[in-house]
Amino acid sequence: MSSVIGNKIKVSVFGQSHSEAIGCVIDGLPAGFKPDMDAVNTFMQRRAPGKNKYSTSRSEADTPEIVSGLADGFTCGAPLCAIIRNTNTRSADYSDLKAKPRPSHADYPYYVKTNGFNDIRGGGHSSGRLTAPLCFAGALMLQLLNMRGVSISAHIYSIQNEKDTPFDAVNISNANIAAKDFPVIDDESGIRMKNVIENARMNLDSVGGIIECAVCGMPAGIGEPMFDGIENRLASNIFGIPAVKGIEFGKGFAITEMTGSTANDAFSYNESGNIITKTNNNGGILGGMTTGMPIIFRAAIKPTPSIASKQETVNLKTKTNDSLEIHGRHDPCIVPRAVPVIEAVTAITMLDFLM
Amino acid sequence: MSSVIGNKIKVSVFGQSHSEAIGCVIDGLPAGFKPDMDAVNTFMQRRAPGKNKYSTSRSEADTPEIVSGLADGFTCGAPLCAIIRNTNTRSADYSDLKAKPRPSHADYPYYVKTNGFNDIRGGGHSSGRLTAPLCFAGALMLQLLNMRGVSISAHIYSIQNEKDTPFDAVNISNANIAAKDFPVIDDESGIRMKNVIENARMNLDSVGGIIECAVCGMPAGIGEPMFDGIENRLASNIFGIPAVKGIEFGKGFAITEMTGSTANDAFSYNESGNIITKTNNNGGILGGMTTGMPIIFRAAIKPTPSIASKQETVNLKTKTNDSLEIHGRHDPCIVPRAVPVIEAVTAITMLDFLM
Amino acid sequence: MSSVIGNKIKVSVFGQSHSEAIGCVIDGLPAGFKPDMDAVNTFMQRRAPGKNKYSTSRSEADTPEIVSGLADGFTCGAPLCAIIRNTNTRSADYSDLKAKPRPSHADYPYYVKTNGFNDIRGGGHSSGRLTAPLCFAGALMLQLLNMRGVSISAHIYSIQNEKDTPFDAVNISNANIAAKDFPVIDDESGIRMKNVIENARMNLDSVGGIIECAVCGMPAGIGEPMFDGIENRLASNIFGIPAVKGIEFGKGFAITEMTGSTANDAFSYNESGNIITKTNNNGGILGGMTTGMPIIFRAAIKPTPSIASKQETVNLKTKTNDSLEIHGRHDPCIVPRAVPVIEAVTAITMLDFLM
Amino acid sequence: MSSVIGNKIKVSVFGQSHSEAIGCVIDGLPAGFKPDMDAVNTFMQRRAPGKNKYSTSRSEADTPEIVSGLADGFTCGAPLCAIIRNTNTRSADYSDLKAKPRPSHADYPYYVKTNGFNDIRGGGHSSGRLTAPLCFAGALMLQLLNMRGVSISAHIYSIQNEKDTPFDAVNISNANIAAKDFPVIDDESGIRMKNVIENARMNLDSVGGIIECAVCGMPAGIGEPMFDGIENRLASNIFGIPAVKGIEFGKGFAITEMTGSTANDAFSYNESGNIITKTNNNGGILGGMTTGMPIIFRAAIKPTPSIASKQETVNLKTKTNDSLEIHGRHDPCIVPRAVPVIEAVTAITMLDFLM
Repeated sequence: MSSVIGNKIKVSVFGQSHSEAIGCVIDGLPAGFKPDMDAVNTFMQRRAPGKNKYSTSRSEADTPEIVSGLADGFTCGAPLCAIIRNTNTRSADYSDLKAKPRPSHADYPYYVKTNGFNDIRGGGHSSGRLTAPLCFAGALMLQLLNMRGVSISAHIYSIQNEKDTPFDAVNISNANIAAKDFPVIDDESGIRMKNVIENARMNLDSVGGIIECAVCGMPAGIGEPMFDGIENRLASNIFGIPAVKGIEFGKGFAITEMTGSTANDAFSYNESGNIITKTNNNGGILGGMTTGMPIIFRAAIKPTPSIASKQETVNLKTKTNDSLEIHGRHDPCIVPRAVPVIEAVTAITMLDFLM
Repeated sequence: MSSVIGNKIKVSVFGQSHSEAIGCVIDGLPAGFKPDMDAVNTFMQRRAPGKNKYSTSRSEADTPEIVSGLADGFTCGAPLCAIIRNTNTRSADYSDLKAKPRPSHADYPYYVKTNGFNDIRGGGHSSGRLTAPLCFAGALMLQLLNMRGVSISAHIYSIQNEKDTPFDAVNISNANIAAKDFPVIDDESGIRMKNVIENARMNLDSVGGIIECAVCGMPAGIGEPMFDGIENRLASNIFGIPAVKGIEFGKGFAITEMTGSTANDAFSYNESGNIITKTNNNGGILGGMTTGMPIIFRAAIKPTPSIASKQETVNLKTKTNDSLEIHGRHDPCIVPRAVPVIEAVTAITMLDFLM
Repeated sequence: MSSVIGNKIKVSVFGQSHSEAIGCVIDGLPAGFKPDMDAVNTFMQRRAPGKNKYSTSRSEADTPEIVSGLADGFTCGAPLCAIIRNTNTRSADYSDLKAKPRPSHADYPYYVKTNGFNDIRGGGHSSGRLTAPLCFAGALMLQLLNMRGVSISAHIYSIQNEKDTPFDAVNISNANIAAKDFPVIDDESGIRMKNVIENARMNLDSVGGIIECAVCGMPAGIGEPMFDGIENRLASNIFGIPAVKGIEFGKGFAITEMTGSTANDAFSYNESGNIITKTNNNGGILGGMTTGMPIIFRAAIKPTPSIASKQETVNLKTKTNDSLEIHGRHDPCIVPRAVPVIEAVTAITMLDFLM
Repeated sequence: MSSVIGNKIKVSVFGQSHSEAIGCVIDGLPAGFKPDMDAVNTFMQRRAPGKNKYSTSRSEADTPEIVSGLADGFTCGAPLCAIIRNTNTRSADYSDLKAKPRPSHADYPYYVKTNGFNDIRGGGHSSGRLTAPLCFAGALMLQLLNMRGVSISAHIYSIQNEKDTPFDAVNISNANIAAKDFPVIDDESGIRMKNVIENARMNLDSVGGIIECAVCGMPAGIGEPMFDGIENRLASNIFGIPAVKGIEFGKGFAITEMTGSTANDAFSYNESGNIITKTNNNGGILGGMTTGMPIIFRAAIKPTPSIASKQETVNLKTKTNDSLEIHGRHDPCIVPRAVPVIEAVTAITMLDFLM
């Protein structure tokens, strides 16, 4: 089932960018939980488009309607379904695309897969818009994780070549990133990043970046060895977010340039008598299982493939080479809006491990 | 089920480093397939230890006994079970480790998870030895993939800072890497890599590296959108290999430093009238689905955590800080032996998508 | 995931009897299929309540709104979500039930399971109303099965002690049962059954019965041995319909009174050169796999547990024995309306095997 | 995966009747459990063949070798694999069967499914012999269930028309059935049943029967509504046992002849202040969930299809009608040996729900 995430708590995502609605069904939520809908909406607004010039001008209320799963405002053990109506759609923008797949979009393989019956409008089921129900689900999960002492925080680690200060992997300080319009640790680097994005927009081009995410408060020993560990599931789920092309845990690819003696994380008792590691090059995970240290990972987000300048492609009707100009409303950089999505998918994954 | 991989073809791995045997059960193989056992053994020898000074001196025959699933040498539709006896075990080497978890190994979280009942001998179920049955399964899958026109090839992309020539993502040339003792494309860089490993060994230290893998011949449109695509499953499965800390597809993390106009892979008809992309920065995958171009990914392998020099750790019995010297037989660099393991897990994943 | 059915095509059911809506998400439908919505509505009307005195007076339009999964009226490869609004709810009727579980209903175990947070209104998620989205999904599946030459037909086999003519297991003749108001083969027995139901209603009591279902046109060799065969999955899914207490295939329990020599179904070539069995005591299934003969099974439906007469129960608040009168609108016999539900769940199961 | 049972604890069964070995892999056993191997062997002996004239003369030691999953005799969190060597095989007996499928056996659909590559020797993977590893797994699970206060007991409910005393569904008294050679409650009826079996054997024929099983000690509220409840999973798993053709819970099919007022199980506080039901017509399950009362079900076992008298069948090579005499060693009635198998599969199912 391609659009489902989770084992004990399952989130089933449905909808296309321009279908009547998008939404999700969440099965397995513990009964007796009263969602804080204000907090849910605040979280979803972090992803919502149309807020500034860094993002698409498509504006949607993005208000989820919960049609099942609650009784008197509390979860009742039945699957919770939330629906978000699609209202601000302009399907005419996409009339050309059926024949001319957009480079680096899912159009072409989806066309082959469905014998041409895929919904091309707005990217269909592969649209970034489908991350809205993921954020809804993640916002609920975050509340349940917080009750269990677990917090999740992400920031823009880089936009193109501009880098933020990384997390201190041993002592995460979230520094209120979630409250910021532009979620970085170092606001100075944030200004430089915005310039990079604005330049890309002016050039009818786009840029990508890296998001770093930290999970604090997970107890040790969570995750199953081999194929069902934290890294396996987080990686699988994070690649469900459009435009992700890489994921690394702890030092990640950079650990390959270290030696064992410097890379190994020495165990130690801290003052409270708890076992910690003095460094955290493994990102809080050993053998797929949590060590009790913060879980740290980074995800690579490619430049938005929808760019305004003319591009080469093929024409599937005429079976000739052709070219394409994309006129829809698109983000010159998807990374800022992807930050809460990364948090949401991480929350969905982590709560599932804890149930 | 933590030790199972696959959907339509499932590989269930069992065993600990020092249990009576290790092995796997493969369910879902097509009936009527006659495995070439010579080819299986040749493939498994690429992973086998004890061949040279770059790897552990533990030597095992590693001959799988197939106890079910065949009739007259052909698969018969019943699950195929293969067993590899553990013969050359020296459990005395591990007597200390129950109390003193090895840094950057799975010992500590496994201890927490099992209330101290984990099998510490040789790393137990988390041992690299469990990759032997994966190679057995992968060797079978590779034969079935070859029949379907799909080939898989991997090479050492880097050891610490020494890099091999990367694959040409548009026109893969395997250059007989699999036949080499030290699987690199450029043998000169291979000599430098061996020096790096030998230096680490002399320093009682270890090094890691990156493995690059390519899958050629997959048709377009394979993989399910969102959470069950090629990237999702490959990432999840590759993280099941011990010591993997990162995975990236196509240009991976480097794509975040490109712009959309340079990163986008333009579609084009080639001379044979097939649709190709002129570049392959997306590694043959868009929206989780194959494009028909080679699938390219790289996996980061951390330095072997078992090093001979003294390390700091905790003592779980005395609940004090302590130190540890590891006396077992260990590889100063696991990367060369991990190359066929990456191929095997990739084969298992790809065949599953094609069934 | 408790409310999901299927492997390759998954139907995820959501909603409670009195929540804003009920519905389902169907993932895995083949792309390019144009549902005949008139046929869907006709099928759903067979289950709909409020049509006559044999069923509850609760009347709902039961019109599904498809909010995703279609483009230009054709399935597009994205999950199809359909929503049915709950409009004619009278929650006041259920005010007492939170403290006093209804005998033979799911109230009590659901209360324990959810620590009292279950949605008691109208039976919540365990309500027979949840079979409406199952019928919606089944109606779509039936269309896809018909295209593949597979038909499904069910009839009332018995109401209490009144029995219909059984199917001829070798040569099924559907005799247009689906078009009948009261789906029996022999209309004379149908009249007697209606009298039994009417008597029960007059006595403020209820009755149950048996439904027999046949699947024709399935090719031989479908189903997986041991735990994933036709019987395993059909049984598991059919027990998902409220009030089912037994299932049997072919001669079922009666086969235990036969001898091997009379029970065995002899193979034979028919005039067309196809392999058939001369009898079909195994109901078209051997070793969990189809034989190519009609699949025949019967499901036992218990008497509607909601009866108007006073019943003994406990009071969970006062922790004393208590009594209860149920005032809602209830069917004196659920069997007639369950016939299309059995067909629907069978269709969902069978199409899943064929994908 | 056709030969796997369970969710949190998975039992993966492998082997064919005449392959080198049969066995199973059990994943998810709690760590720190020390199996009582004497009790395991005692349990397995109840199923073992060759003990008396009521069963096949094929005699196997059936001693499982545990090759993984234990450390110092305790489960260690790694998958436990047990292997049973096949030693007393006479494959020559089956030489004819490839062309001539045995009536009411899995031969024919398996032949179609595998294009003739199925292992026909001894029934291959569909053989009743595969219930030996199920009994091994079940014997372990029973020990873990007993520690949790849950017991499971089954008896022969009927052989052809001879019936045993049924369980008292409200107050189960196991009466030491498991210790009996012929597991019935009423030994007088047992003598009559043995006569029925002996008569069948003398007539070169076979008989079937019904097994009744009870699970005591399950807490209330276990099981998931709709498609993942106790009935769903038990039914699915029990149909994995060869020759089962029906299953019913509580009063089962007979409840369809009752009225709601007599069928409903009234709730009541007992003297200890626990909630019970005064009757248990629902077999301890409501809405798929446990009520805390004994779980009661019956499974119909068809007459052994392998009978010594001549039978009609087809010849798949010559494509003509043909006849067949079966010369192997077969039970005239499989029911007595199936009793522990039913218990074993029930134990596997129940423990999985409790984890």
